[in-house]
Amino acid sequence: MVQLGANRYGKAEVRVVHVARGAGLDGGDVIKDWNVSSALSGDLSATHLTGDNANVLTTDTQKNTAYAFAKTLGGAAVEAYALALAKHYVDSQEPITRARIGVQEYGWTPIPVGEHAFARTGQYTRTTRVVHDAEAGTSVVSGLEGLTVLKTTGSEFRGFPDDRYTTLAETADRILATEVSARWRFRDTDVDWAVAHARALDALLTAFAATHSRSLQQTVYAIGERILAAVPQACEVRLALPNKHHFLVDLEPFGLSNDNEVYYAADRPYGLIEGTVLADDAGDPGIAWD
Amino acid sequence: MVQLGANRYGKAEVRVVHVARGAGLDGGDVIKDWNVSSALSGDLSATHLTGDNANVLTTDTQKNTAYAFAKTLGGAAVEAYALALAKHYVDSQEPITRARIGVQEYGWTPIPVGEHAFARTGQYTRTTRVVHDAEAGTSVVSGLEGLTVLKTTGSEFRGFPDDRYTTLAETADRILATEVSARWRFRDTDVDWAVAHARALDALLTAFAATHSRSLQQTVYAIGERILAAVPQACEVRLALPNKHHFLVDLEPFGLSNDNEVYYAADRPYGLIEGTVLADDAGDPGIAWD
Amino acid sequence: MVQLGANRYGKAEVRVVHVARGAGLDGGDVIKDWNVSSALSGDLSATHLTGDNANVLTTDTQKNTAYAFAKTLGGAAVEAYALALAKHYVDSQEPITRARIGVQEYGWTPIPVGEHAFARTGQYTRTTRVVHDAEAGTSVVSGLEGLTVLKTTGSEFRGFPDDRYTTLAETADRILATEVSARWRFRDTDVDWAVAHARALDALLTAFAATHSRSLQQTVYAIGERILAAVPQACEVRLALPNKHHFLVDLEPFGLSNDNEVYYAADRPYGLIEGTVLADDAGDPGIAWD
Amino acid sequence: MVQLGANRYGKAEVRVVHVARGAGLDGGDVIKDWNVSSALSGDLSATHLTGDNANVLTTDTQKNTAYAFAKTLGGAAVEAYALALAKHYVDSQEPITRARIGVQEYGWTPIPVGEHAFARTGQYTRTTRVVHDAEAGTSVVSGLEGLTVLKTTGSEFRGFPDDRYTTLAETADRILATEVSARWRFRDTDVDWAVAHARALDALLTAFAATHSRSLQQTVYAIGERILAAVPQACEVRLALPNKHHFLVDLEPFGLSNDNEVYYAADRPYGLIEGTVLADDAGDPGIAWD
Repeated sequence: MVQLGANRYGKAEVRVVHVARGAGLDGGDVIKDWNVSSALSGDLSATHLTGDNANVLTTDTQKNTAYAFAKTLGGAAVEAYALALAKHYVDSQEPITRARIGVQEYGWTPIPVGEHAFARTGQYTRTTRVVHDAEAGTSVVSGLEGLTVLKTTGSEFRGFPDDRYTTLAETADRILATEVSARWRFRDTDVDWAVAHARALDALLTAFAATHSRSLQQTVYAIGERILAAVPQACEVRLALPNKHHFLVDLEPFGLSNDNEVYYAADRPYGLIEGTVLADDAGDPGIAWD
Repeated sequence: MVQLGANRYGKAEVRVVHVARGAGLDGGDVIKDWNVSSALSGDLSATHLTGDNANVLTTDTQKNTAYAFAKTLGGAAVEAYALALAKHYVDSQEPITRARIGVQEYGWTPIPVGEHAFARTGQYTRTTRVVHDAEAGTSVVSGLEGLTVLKTTGSEFRGFPDDRYTTLAETADRILATEVSARWRFRDTDVDWAVAHARALDALLTAFAATHSRSLQQTVYAIGERILAAVPQACEVRLALPNKHHFLVDLEPFGLSNDNEVYYAADRPYGLIEGTVLADDAGDPGIAWD
Repeated sequence: MVQLGANRYGKAEVRVVHVARGAGLDGGDVIKDWNVSSALSGDLSATHLTGDNANVLTTDTQKNTAYAFAKTLGGAAVEAYALALAKHYVDSQEPITRARIGVQEYGWTPIPVGEHAFARTGQYTRTTRVVHDAEAGTSVVSGLEGLTVLKTTGSEFRGFPDDRYTTLAETADRILATEVSARWRFRDTDVDWAVAHARALDALLTAFAATHSRSLQQTVYAIGERILAAVPQACEVRLALPNKHHFLVDLEPFGLSNDNEVYYAADRPYGLIEGTVLADDAGDPGIAWD
Repeated sequence: MVQLGANRYGKAEVRVVHVARGAGLDGGDVIKDWNVSSALSGDLSATHLTGDNANVLTTDTQKNTAYAFAKTLGGAAVEAYALALAKHYVDSQEPITRARIGVQEYGWTPIPVGEHAFARTGQYTRTTRVVHDAEAGTSVVSGLEGLTVLKTTGSEFRGFPDDRYTTLAETADRILATEVSARWRFRDTDVDWAVAHARALDALLTAFAATHSRSLQQTVYAIGERILAAVPQACEVRLALPNKHHFLVDLEPFGLSNDNEVYYAADRPYGLIEGTVLADDAGDPGIAWD
């Protein structure tokens, strides 16, 4: 005999763009460009077992709701929007006991001609994920992804074990490059989201640049530590840093030296370093990361 | 004060191709085409805190090991290869207490001219993920991803709640299409992996085709149920089924009828249904899905 | 002073799915799954110079037209559908003197349970591109893309020049793998499109498998030659074959031999071989490839 | 009987990263991050017809050459690097009569902590394509791709024809968004490449922002015209602008107004506008765009 286990359903990748006309500091417009996903859980056995959909608020309705909420909250921080949306589902749909809202935000920068033109920045995507549960409460995890950074020096990798399959040479000076995926969990929701994001980003870039790196793990820890110091409302940082290998090209066969000048940027395989840094007084994450 | 939390590191996406020459039933070659990722955990505080890498078996070594193990196990099932690799790391590296090996396998079919030419099938990717832990033991989760299936009829969606934001009409006959991502957890490792894979695939396709679907959730459950029946060595199935919406095009403005003939295949947003089906006697998954 | 040069506009990637119910040989349904793009040219100076759109049949209308034509031709060969669509624009819109219709067709195969379920094949995408010009007439170029093929032996690469930058070793036995992008130009439109496609595909696979390859260029030529022999209505074949390098892994450092067993499948960079094979009596292509 | 037609071969996507240490204005490093592709043509019948590779400078050698030339020219403009590489092949390999070098350049911006850390800008990719032919001479086409821009107002679309399949409503105020792909052909090679690029980019952004757009075609022309005015060394501009549709969401069913605030950003299908703007005295492009 079998039974239904954990499940959830929702609408993924609702593309919401909001224009706040004249809301900029200089009187220009402000754009928000979001990719919104919702996932609901609760008393959903019937639809799985018999196809009775009486408890299934449709994913089409979730799409509509994402747009409707953008009417009033489209100009807010992604966290505020996601919080409102998550609570709405749990509060208004009796069978739904948990809602998870994820938002990716793409950045735009004004083109300094007129007040209405913008270029997509492309440097990274800001993210948030809110989980609201009728019993367990509310959690907010924010972050960013797709931020590619590189150090031309100040990175070494030495002192590692040498087993039967080890051929790598030690290096005292290498390029270190990674595409940062970082998320930080907030202690509660009493946060100035824009300030928290700006501080975390600044801490991340500073830690990457300022850390003399003996391993990418050391950089992971340094980034996490510095984000927690800069954003006291956050209590846990999770990082996934692929090591975007840059190999020095051997130019000797061509009669040329290569004094750390010419590199081959490799695609695959890549190292992948995943780590967590926690405040000593961090509470249990519960459902925050699910 | 902060501390290091959960962490792991490894080499991702090592592209291993193995040719077993003359090993086919007909005397032709057999190809295995794998994308291998390893992630190790254990006593790794030093590299995070001080950059001391004495415990860090390098990701380059992990790449080498993936290739070396393919010498003897490149012709085996992905599960057998992954099991051997996972145990190797924990058994041979004292500080490493857990290894997770993931493999994606791309299928090839012989071209019936000569005995040495093949075409990539492209229909789906077979997957496995093995976790071996010095204390918690060994788990195997296998599956497939990228299998797109569609039913031209035999799918309805009715009886859902109607809230303030609901505009969707009920339908008694729609196209149902999804790109299946399915994984099943084995009870132990005493399994004929090839047979299990074939049975699970067959059960999945049969369930999708044979279930009169009142919701995609119902199809999720039917697939899970049927896989567990077909593969008794499995005790848990997890499915993620995006609803690849096919909307009937309104041809009336052009003076044409559309009797369920012409559809628009939408990209985003999409419904996403995630569900678990468990055998009643399934053991605790522990670290299997981490 | 500047002037307007060549231009065209249209709707790209209209996703049309057509179900011909009960039209299969066995009474089952037949699916066509298309990605349709149209591009129109003609007297379009006004919209460029002044924004006067009197001659601009909107791209939204082109989308609608793609769906409307699928009502009657959705079950036909992509070439027949594209021909009808191309002629429609030039015949019905006076300012439009040229139309190019491109279609990608994704394959589906029945699931042998019931008569209404299908799985996407994924092996390759069938393509066509029709150009219809009021003066220059009509051309059809069909083909396929995304077909990945591999030979485990029967491929060598030797006798190449050795310049200052050459380090490659000669090889008498290598894996040859490529992702075929092939297109063939028809002499006219009096063609059984399904038969022509099947013959070209068979010729392509046979040529790849049967040719002892001393260079990928030789394989390019062999494929083109064999397609022209198999499809006499075609007079020109253009091929783009990336060399998907498979490098033998050096296992010696690990005390292992590698007798053409274990390979590393590389991503980038890749060789790219592009070639044309023409019938001696091929007419001038004119606008066919534009 | 069949014959060999146009053909070329080369190495695609060689990932070259060059670090000029201490070469920045402020004493910091300067990074160049390139994706280099070469394609050679000439007397290549033998390899196609018989597999005789005596004239085939290997694609592996082309990869090596791309790296070797980066030793001295890795800090130069992409155009200067590509010119040197193209000439090298034609000058040094007697059978090779034409070389085409394409380079994509990814931008990096210093992180203002230390002098050695950078973040990838991600806003657009700079491109160049140099063709050098022993007889036809040398051409340079530069440009950019992936630059996404948006106007919140100042765009209308009206006055288009209304045929049987037209359902689109006219609009006097819409969002206009596109991902710019632009290329400009230089009259000769006596150019300050960095200045030309900066001027073209500025002209492009200014034209997009400043043009009151009655159609995307009008914007295409305005961009081309302004680039030619800003970069007199260029004589031809080719643009491909997908219309990234932003549709106003109908919030009325939810009792909400939508005063040009909330939009749905669509993926497919999309309009695609391609146009050319030429200086009146532009020379024949010859092989420049091949």
